[in-house]
Amino acid sequence: MPSIGYVSPQTMHFPQPLALQSGATLQDYTLMYETYGTLNDDKSNAVLVCHALNASHHVAGEYEGKPKSTGWWDNMVGPGKPLDTDKFFVIGVNNLGSCFGSTGPMHTNPATGKPYGAAFPVVTVEDWVASQALLADRLGIQQFAAVMGGSLGGMQALAWSIMYPDRLRNCVVIASTPKLSAQNIAFNDVARQAILSDPDYHGGDFYEHGVVPRNGLRVARMVGHITYLSDDDMAEKFGRKLRDVSKNGDGNYKFGFGVDFEIESYLRYQGDKFSEYFDANTYLLITKALDYFDPARAHGGDLAKTLAGTKAKFLLASFTTDWRFSPARSQEIVQALVRNRRPVTYAEIDAPHGHDAFLLEDPRYMNLVRAYYEQVWKELGAPAQAAPASSNKEYA
Amino acid sequence: MPSIGYVSPQTMHFPQPLALQSGATLQDYTLMYETYGTLNDDKSNAVLVCHALNASHHVAGEYEGKPKSTGWWDNMVGPGKPLDTDKFFVIGVNNLGSCFGSTGPMHTNPATGKPYGAAFPVVTVEDWVASQALLADRLGIQQFAAVMGGSLGGMQALAWSIMYPDRLRNCVVIASTPKLSAQNIAFNDVARQAILSDPDYHGGDFYEHGVVPRNGLRVARMVGHITYLSDDDMAEKFGRKLRDVSKNGDGNYKFGFGVDFEIESYLRYQGDKFSEYFDANTYLLITKALDYFDPARAHGGDLAKTLAGTKAKFLLASFTTDWRFSPARSQEIVQALVRNRRPVTYAEIDAPHGHDAFLLEDPRYMNLVRAYYEQVWKELGAPAQAAPASSNKEYA
Repeated sequence: MPSIGYVSPQTMHFPQPLALQSGATLQDYTLMYETYGTLNDDKSNAVLVCHALNASHHVAGEYEGKPKSTGWWDNMVGPGKPLDTDKFFVIGVNNLGSCFGSTGPMHTNPATGKPYGAAFPVVTVEDWVASQALLADRLGIQQFAAVMGGSLGGMQALAWSIMYPDRLRNCVVIASTPKLSAQNIAFNDVARQAILSDPDYHGGDFYEHGVVPRNGLRVARMVGHITYLSDDDMAEKFGRKLRDVSKNGDGNYKFGFGVDFEIESYLRYQGDKFSEYFDANTYLLITKALDYFDPARAHGGDLAKTLAGTKAKFLLASFTTDWRFSPARSQEIVQALVRNRRPVTYAEIDAPHGHDAFLLEDPRYMNLVRAYYEQVWKELGAPAQAAPASSNKEYA
Repeated sequence: MPSIGYVSPQTMHFPQPLALQSGATLQDYTLMYETYGTLNDDKSNAVLVCHALNASHHVAGEYEGKPKSTGWWDNMVGPGKPLDTDKFFVIGVNNLGSCFGSTGPMHTNPATGKPYGAAFPVVTVEDWVASQALLADRLGIQQFAAVMGGSLGGMQALAWSIMYPDRLRNCVVIASTPKLSAQNIAFNDVARQAILSDPDYHGGDFYEHGVVPRNGLRVARMVGHITYLSDDDMAEKFGRKLRDVSKNGDGNYKFGFGVDFEIESYLRYQGDKFSEYFDANTYLLITKALDYFDPARAHGGDLAKTLAGTKAKFLLASFTTDWRFSPARSQEIVQALVRNRRPVTYAEIDAPHGHDAFLLEDPRYMNLVRAYYEQVWKELGAPAQAAPASSNKEYA
């Protein structure tokens, strides 16, 4: 069991309409979230963790009775972990449009009484951040000690620093980018086309047809997954290893269109698994949120100008073999911050695992984040250590 | 009109069975090919040009009455071009399994009287080379002045040097690799899965259903196309440019799943176009031929040992921004040749266009190939320049 023990998700309903960047409005909505650790009396020790493409509010811990339900960043968040829940009150929130609990395409559209489907409004990183700020309001948190995320989660953290400069003391942006490149968008569009052209997609209304565009989702995930891994790491893990080999390690090509190589088997397995739990409309929504993120767009493309009003301290980290959001993309943010004389710590971590490295255990990476949060803790005025009997511990 | 003028394809029927690497046999088959220039009396000036994924025997020139039918390497092959058809007799041959004239999946399977479909046997680079050698026999060409190709075509040239060391004086391998990496295979498998899971594929027998797995082919081509272009080139050409902009150059996001960015429009257009002319079974066959190519496999993975018996001189070229088959992959071949003390010329060309660079006009690249062929010509014993009135010129 993860050291944080059993956790439970919570929901918060928002009855007021949310105006979205697209011009559309969500009449009402629910956010699903989890918290770990204890909010201190002056509510200064809260850290918001934003999730990336296929993750959720379930950042750390495990659900009782579900042994394989460990949170997606459990190596990062927990008692004694780099983001230490004995000190910080950590919040994970599921984004609007997701398929893991917050209001999304599979929920009932109040206007029609049927699932939203493709009619669910396109949501942006900024929309997510606005809804997260409303959740913070309801939880009485005026200022986060930090907002943190990797990849698409890092974009949310960055957007927080721009949209609500007074509401976060620190901004932690891992393996992210100020905007997608043409190649990034191209891969996203391949994924979207695979889903949209699957006859089982039914224009987004597949729920009422009792089917799922599984083939499209599968291909979408396969192509996405390739971009998360480094070429080197794939070579190391799979190389040209054949799937079926005889006892002496030899194998023959099958001379058909089935699986010959381990890498094919692995990718197809990842695709199959993904297509069983992920929602196709959510996938489309999230890839569009990625594509649209470009905060400098409102400032003529000038990222320094865009970040001029930020007040947070920044930690940025990138990974050498990440070719999805390469170190150069993080450096763009660092340079724009430096031009504004903002305090920024940046580390480029020599890790073999590509973009996925941000989710993996790497001592240099973990120590970097740990040291940063120790500093954050000190700068909070070194409050007395929160009582070890946190609310989550009760479940343990 | 291209300087070589009008050209015409020819066919050669082979009534004898061809035993394939898979163990299967093609009972009989036809190869479609084109020739440019004039074969000299001692038949020493022939150059075989091997094609890559979506190309054909139609290397240079134009078909009469079809103004946009210029051959795929017309900038390379022709009178006065780097591979000069005033000197050399150049042969382009369409590979078995293709959809451009040589026997392939859409042709009648003599065993069933119906189109082969997915029953067309899987063919390998070595099978193609064996069939090309039989064509050379029939044309009376015992030894090529050179065998040349880019990408998958380069693999064929390399296989020629291994399989028929006495039958080529020079081997020209552009933007190629001694074997695909796990990442290369992964992208190919995404493409295959897109096709195989398209309901219109019908297990490969879509011909008799009167449909084409267009959506699958489209996605396959989109993902392939991304790997042909460099990240930089995409950034330069498309960046984050929006498709529909107002007169003053501004544009707005559409907040839907349609086209927002130029890169999406471009890729979808490429996918659409491809799906209109390319055969799905051919695509599957060719990606498998790519995946399977690994001549060192029969030598315990030792490429130097694999190339020990070659007798050709080699020219290899790679392009700095090619991330599909990066310069490092060409260097593996170069190093294995050097270890065998084979004469090899290698150039790494600083070109922005990624893998596609091998098809494009680049002065350094063109001059490199030109200089190499001038040397080849000299070493042929500087025969009297072939008469300028080549057979192709008659059509001009």
